[in-house]
Amino acid sequence: MTVTRPLRGATAAQTHSAVLDLIRSGGVVSRVELADRSGLTEASISRIVRQMLTDGLVAEIGTGDRTGGKRRTLLQLNAGSRHAVGLSLDFARVTYVVTDLGGTVVGRLDGEGIGLSAPGEVVPRLAAELDDLVGSTGVDRSTLMGIGIAAAGRQDSAHRVLRSNPHAEDWELFDLEDALSTATGLPVVVENDSTCAAIGEYWVGRIPASADFATVYLATGFGLGLVTNGDVYRGASSNVGEIGHLVLDIDGPPCWCGSRGCLEVLAAPRRIVELALGRGLGEELGLRGQPVTLRQDADRVARAAAAGHPEALPVIEESARHLARALVSVTNLLDLDQIILAGPGFAAAGEIYLRHAREDLQRLSFVRAVHPTTVTLSRFSDVSAALGAASLVLHSRLTPHQTSSRLALAR
Amino acid sequence: MTVTRPLRGATAAQTHSAVLDLIRSGGVVSRVELADRSGLTEASISRIVRQMLTDGLVAEIGTGDRTGGKRRTLLQLNAGSRHAVGLSLDFARVTYVVTDLGGTVVGRLDGEGIGLSAPGEVVPRLAAELDDLVGSTGVDRSTLMGIGIAAAGRQDSAHRVLRSNPHAEDWELFDLEDALSTATGLPVVVENDSTCAAIGEYWVGRIPASADFATVYLATGFGLGLVTNGDVYRGASSNVGEIGHLVLDIDGPPCWCGSRGCLEVLAAPRRIVELALGRGLGEELGLRGQPVTLRQDADRVARAAAAGHPEALPVIEESARHLARALVSVTNLLDLDQIILAGPGFAAAGEIYLRHAREDLQRLSFVRAVHPTTVTLSRFSDVSAALGAASLVLHSRLTPHQTSSRLALAR
Repeated sequence: MTVTRPLRGATAAQTHSAVLDLIRSGGVVSRVELADRSGLTEASISRIVRQMLTDGLVAEIGTGDRTGGKRRTLLQLNAGSRHAVGLSLDFARVTYVVTDLGGTVVGRLDGEGIGLSAPGEVVPRLAAELDDLVGSTGVDRSTLMGIGIAAAGRQDSAHRVLRSNPHAEDWELFDLEDALSTATGLPVVVENDSTCAAIGEYWVGRIPASADFATVYLATGFGLGLVTNGDVYRGASSNVGEIGHLVLDIDGPPCWCGSRGCLEVLAAPRRIVELALGRGLGEELGLRGQPVTLRQDADRVARAAAAGHPEALPVIEESARHLARALVSVTNLLDLDQIILAGPGFAAAGEIYLRHAREDLQRLSFVRAVHPTTVTLSRFSDVSAALGAASLVLHSRLTPHQTSSRLALAR
Repeated sequence: MTVTRPLRGATAAQTHSAVLDLIRSGGVVSRVELADRSGLTEASISRIVRQMLTDGLVAEIGTGDRTGGKRRTLLQLNAGSRHAVGLSLDFARVTYVVTDLGGTVVGRLDGEGIGLSAPGEVVPRLAAELDDLVGSTGVDRSTLMGIGIAAAGRQDSAHRVLRSNPHAEDWELFDLEDALSTATGLPVVVENDSTCAAIGEYWVGRIPASADFATVYLATGFGLGLVTNGDVYRGASSNVGEIGHLVLDIDGPPCWCGSRGCLEVLAAPRRIVELALGRGLGEELGLRGQPVTLRQDADRVARAAAAGHPEALPVIEESARHLARALVSVTNLLDLDQIILAGPGFAAAGEIYLRHAREDLQRLSFVRAVHPTTVTLSRFSDVSAALGAASLVLHSRLTPHQTSSRLALAR
């Protein structure tokens, strides 16, 4: 995130945001350390910190080691001073989290997916559910900075949903930010769900600010969030990361996107359920085979595979084999050294995906002779996108930073 | 390139380099315009420009329009004040260029490729050939800042060649920078050839400093150079862009990298020659079918295809079809809005590759509803990598800038 890289000509808000990030990631830090890490002068840091103390964003927590005879007052994030709602909007499930400024989840709710519903039906329900959730947490509503939405599908350049999935074409051009903001009275920001998952890892996973990594997000489909040089990489129109539409079998089965043999058509939950039904597992695993039960059905197959079911295991292995090869392609293209598997799709059988990805990368990656590419499972798979969405709100509301470093040039 | 984005805490050399880039890309600019575009103060710009005038890097060329009653002295790059040699090192051909500070080619030489030769044999030959070339241009040797090498294959993190191709394994761990520097008395810098091609487009193609684009480079194999937010993206170990090892047919023919169905095995010059020989075109087109004649052979097939030869055309179409689908994958992954096809492999039949890429991207790209992805042929296909390599020298010697924006954080 640009916020961690103070730019010449950065706005006061951007610099503020960068310093807040350093305090968050540092845990407990002194002003001198902040000056060292940010490249700002101690005078600037003092001025910024004074404002943050006034705003209640940080707190002084006593003094650190005597170094050179001078005690240094230590600073810590005042995590409870601000909250945000993060919401991951998916076909099969809507997950809500309320987080504090430090990224701690103080409340969570899983609601029904948006399925085949029209946006006009969904928005009032979202507003009601998140109102219930906030009420149940006891969070002071005056500390609520807004709502972040992690959404699947194409985004237009203003970050609003264009098309959520092929079954919900009436979401196209629907202004979700505006509608939910009107319904709740809170600011709303929409972002690609895979990008949110990457931001979530970055924010809560305490990954160093300078890291390059990718997060594969699996819900109804696959997505990839990219952080390069400590910046979220969004591409020309915030549509980075459609790894689900990486062609793995050029003359393979047709995909709804128009291509053939995309990862999605070969390995996503729809394919998992199709293969499981083809192997006659429907009754035994209680698969309902409906579009709206896709994720639940796939989860059942994944759980059976994780438990070693001899017919379910090959189904998940086949999905994992395709993802692994897609990750080899992506690593060859982007020279990644770290990949995190996140999202509800990896909750039940993540270890199987992990094994295939590790084996393939170790054996086939073009750069394997130069450096390894590590693959890990997210520690909070099923909420990482919602968490990342919440973090966007806290950043953009507290300290409205630029989402693209390109803006530094436009000045 | 980071040079165009002055960073807080940037070294004087980085700032210098950024200003020089603005003068180059601006053509003719005033100090006031430089201050505007860089975000630096007019006082800083005046100081920097004074040093450049002393060094002979820029020249004053009279005054511009009277604006507000004050005439502004205009500045222009003194292109002839510095030169560099750029060299693209490939299996089938070594291309040398001598360029001036403005990116104009003042001399060019095509030498034999490195083929199966050991590095110890090649280095003295490179030194002799580039000495001949420099002599023939009449360039004052005291203005020669160094040699840039665009090399295929894996790079280690210090940017030296690890493995040039599967037929030249003894290049592994050979310190080319050191050896050629010793042989010529000039500083040498090695960089991935696809990245060089992207830098070459950026430098000479007068692409705006903030552009996001990819350059596909085709010589013996395929590579992809990426410029994002105006920065060259190099990944974890400068091995970004191995589009040749994007898997397009997961159960397809084995590739030397270990995977199956990579773009390279389905579409590179080796495959083109193989398909052409299979169609009995060997004698008619004068194909020699030897490893060292690979590029010449493929060029012959491409030239025949471009002329409409009914048997050669489907061979190139098949190669172009695979590249086009790989570009759809890459665009889906990185949300690109601009792709440039560069490198000698596109010299003869670039239009065929262009047509397939444009058609597929228009029809299949995930973001087609949001924005188009334009594809163009490089205007200097066969020397773009050598040009980019030369530009690295001019930048790094004149104003040794950081190659990664990550360094701004390390401070």
